[in-house]
Amino acid sequence: MRAEIVSVGDELLKGQRVNTNAAFMSRALGGIGVPVDRVVACRDLEEEMMAVFAESLGRADLVLVTGGLGPTRDDRTRGAVQQLLGRGLERSEEAYANLVARMKQRGLEVSDSLRDQAMVIEGAHVIANTKGSAAGMIIGCGERFQNHYLVLMPGVPSEMIAMMELTVIPWFAALSRSVIRHTPVKTLGIGESTLAGMIADIEDGLPEGTTLAYLPHAAGVSLMISTIGHEREAVEGDNRSVVDAIAGRAGKYIYATSEVSLEATIGAQLLAGGLTVAVAESCTGGLVASRLTDVPGSSAWFLQGFVVYSNQAKERSLGVPGETIERFGAVSEEVARAMAAGCLEESGADFALSTTGIAGPAGGSPEKPVGMLCLAIARKNSGILLSRTLYMQGDRELNKLRFSEAVLGELWECLRQG
Amino acid sequence: MRAEIVSVGDELLKGQRVNTNAAFMSRALGGIGVPVDRVVACRDLEEEMMAVFAESLGRADLVLVTGGLGPTRDDRTRGAVQQLLGRGLERSEEAYANLVARMKQRGLEVSDSLRDQAMVIEGAHVIANTKGSAAGMIIGCGERFQNHYLVLMPGVPSEMIAMMELTVIPWFAALSRSVIRHTPVKTLGIGESTLAGMIADIEDGLPEGTTLAYLPHAAGVSLMISTIGHEREAVEGDNRSVVDAIAGRAGKYIYATSEVSLEATIGAQLLAGGLTVAVAESCTGGLVASRLTDVPGSSAWFLQGFVVYSNQAKERSLGVPGETIERFGAVSEEVARAMAAGCLEESGADFALSTTGIAGPAGGSPEKPVGMLCLAIARKNSGILLSRTLYMQGDRELNKLRFSEAVLGELWECLRQG
Repeated sequence: MRAEIVSVGDELLKGQRVNTNAAFMSRALGGIGVPVDRVVACRDLEEEMMAVFAESLGRADLVLVTGGLGPTRDDRTRGAVQQLLGRGLERSEEAYANLVARMKQRGLEVSDSLRDQAMVIEGAHVIANTKGSAAGMIIGCGERFQNHYLVLMPGVPSEMIAMMELTVIPWFAALSRSVIRHTPVKTLGIGESTLAGMIADIEDGLPEGTTLAYLPHAAGVSLMISTIGHEREAVEGDNRSVVDAIAGRAGKYIYATSEVSLEATIGAQLLAGGLTVAVAESCTGGLVASRLTDVPGSSAWFLQGFVVYSNQAKERSLGVPGETIERFGAVSEEVARAMAAGCLEESGADFALSTTGIAGPAGGSPEKPVGMLCLAIARKNSGILLSRTLYMQGDRELNKLRFSEAVLGELWECLRQG
Repeated sequence: MRAEIVSVGDELLKGQRVNTNAAFMSRALGGIGVPVDRVVACRDLEEEMMAVFAESLGRADLVLVTGGLGPTRDDRTRGAVQQLLGRGLERSEEAYANLVARMKQRGLEVSDSLRDQAMVIEGAHVIANTKGSAAGMIIGCGERFQNHYLVLMPGVPSEMIAMMELTVIPWFAALSRSVIRHTPVKTLGIGESTLAGMIADIEDGLPEGTTLAYLPHAAGVSLMISTIGHEREAVEGDNRSVVDAIAGRAGKYIYATSEVSLEATIGAQLLAGGLTVAVAESCTGGLVASRLTDVPGSSAWFLQGFVVYSNQAKERSLGVPGETIERFGAVSEEVARAMAAGCLEESGADFALSTTGIAGPAGGSPEKPVGMLCLAIARKNSGILLSRTLYMQGDRELNKLRFSEAVLGELWECLRQG
């Protein structure tokens, strides 16, 4: 069983709303082994909708439509389906009872325009709307469309999500008999093309039903290994064997094989070791601290951050010697080391990270260009563990993100080595 | 001129990525008076892509395609276009020079797989990629497709956005002959429905060709006033008159009528007054510092940040009295005031901000629930200017964002009042 999604509504085509509904429905269908082959966003014109519905129904066993079910004039989804399938409307007593109950709660009567919300396509199975007024529908489309299914839902995310979870997913999970398994492989410190070269033969020899996708993002690249089939054991085995093969080849770049962020991975490492961290930031300006404190429960292992933008702050708050700044410049491994040492001392943490660099757009020079980062990591009782100089490319915000990723990546590596 | 968008990539169909690119492109095209009629997300299979491209080119003057231009095997957009148009590839010297320059900066050679990124469809106009390796293309599709245009861009948002802004939008703005003017109206401290009530009659009386859209976001609401027409003076006049009318009504909530962030607005205020700021953060965990240092040139007015997560850090780094924490709790206006006072003292800045609160998901209680924020602002020679307790609703990251918006909003107000 394969699916397509049609999202109706001018607000999507004007870019006033991002199509998060389609992403939610795709994930939900993927979870029951029904892959989505196409997502189409179209205008709320009846002729255009009829054409789009007909094309999708011609290809896919299941077509999910959201939007255009409300009470206003630009809600034309039912009209388009009536014309396409040549069917009338009938009143759903179940949907009408829902309307009456909703209005009663607010002390209101059911108005004419609302009453219309209980009218459904003849022969449709009604999907109860637990969060709003418009009834959803599961419609068998008959021989002309190879008995494919059309599902109509409102575009309001909360209403659609409740309908998917309570009715649509259970219904089609029973009809489809596929099993699917996704495993992310999250890496650090390696580019897309280098990684691709390293695992080329694994990609060539993927088991049938397994695909490998690259998901490059601002500060690295992730892979997604997806397997679909009919038997749970075989699907999980195939998926696992590909992940293991990649780990065997590129293991030292992989920080997670589940949906977890780098900062959460580091938090778990620190928590497991009963360790704490503090950070001293110049060029990242608080971003490293903010990322670490995005992790729920981070107060157990994150002690403190110093955002020392000015030289005076570096000296006063972290005891960086003025002559070190004078001699090597604020952007230097020497200063990064002094910042990490001072941060360790001031905070009493087990690990201290530091960043100093040039995020841009101004402040670069031939010797110290925009994108240059000096970082250091210090550990209690061991002193400075490492310092590095790296060069990135990006605008100011992207540089800050890449700088933060670099220093967190180094900490992850230190923690892994114990 | 009308457009369609095709987003290529399995990650969109699996719901692993939300299609924010399409929303951006739709808005950008809307900005030059080119409406988008359809958005299609399809798999990275050549045959499917060829079919989708052909259908869209049959309907629309302009088809924007993102994704599938990278160096890996699942990047098949060029292959599909080659087959569809019956054209070969040629090396773009411009794109190749870009690759060489990018690699040189990192001290690397151009590998074979990277070299391939400079190969473009014969006869294409190359779109320079200022943020990455893959070349973009504007392709005139010949008589078979009524001379419609196909535009190929990478799926990485930063690369696509730069290409749209630097090349694609100017190119097609010149071809389409509409004049359009957008003015954002950015507000603070007022909700969508209150604002809507305040300006209802302005909305009712909008000049022809002018629209008003609400763009609610995590921490407030912005308006976008858009005017389209054929004569520059009339378009600009109509647009300005609506913005002025709104400013006359809701001026005290408006911090900007241009595309500028709150933090950049604050930076400009500080710079104009020759003033500096420092921040002391508990619950926002470095986010306030990070937002302020996102502004280019912030080193002129941002001195220092203290991320004091633990009580010990609050005491040691900012001199918050242990007994104040003991008596009122770490989340209290008393502690917020002591943090701001200590931050002013330690940093020597003109203004000091502080935040202490409960971002969640854990740590709440009936008296101090998740979403509670205490903030304070202190000024050199004046001491504490204000402290406040506010309550927000959201998950951890959203709370952090709303907390940061609240304290920055208070600073903006203080600076405005001088």
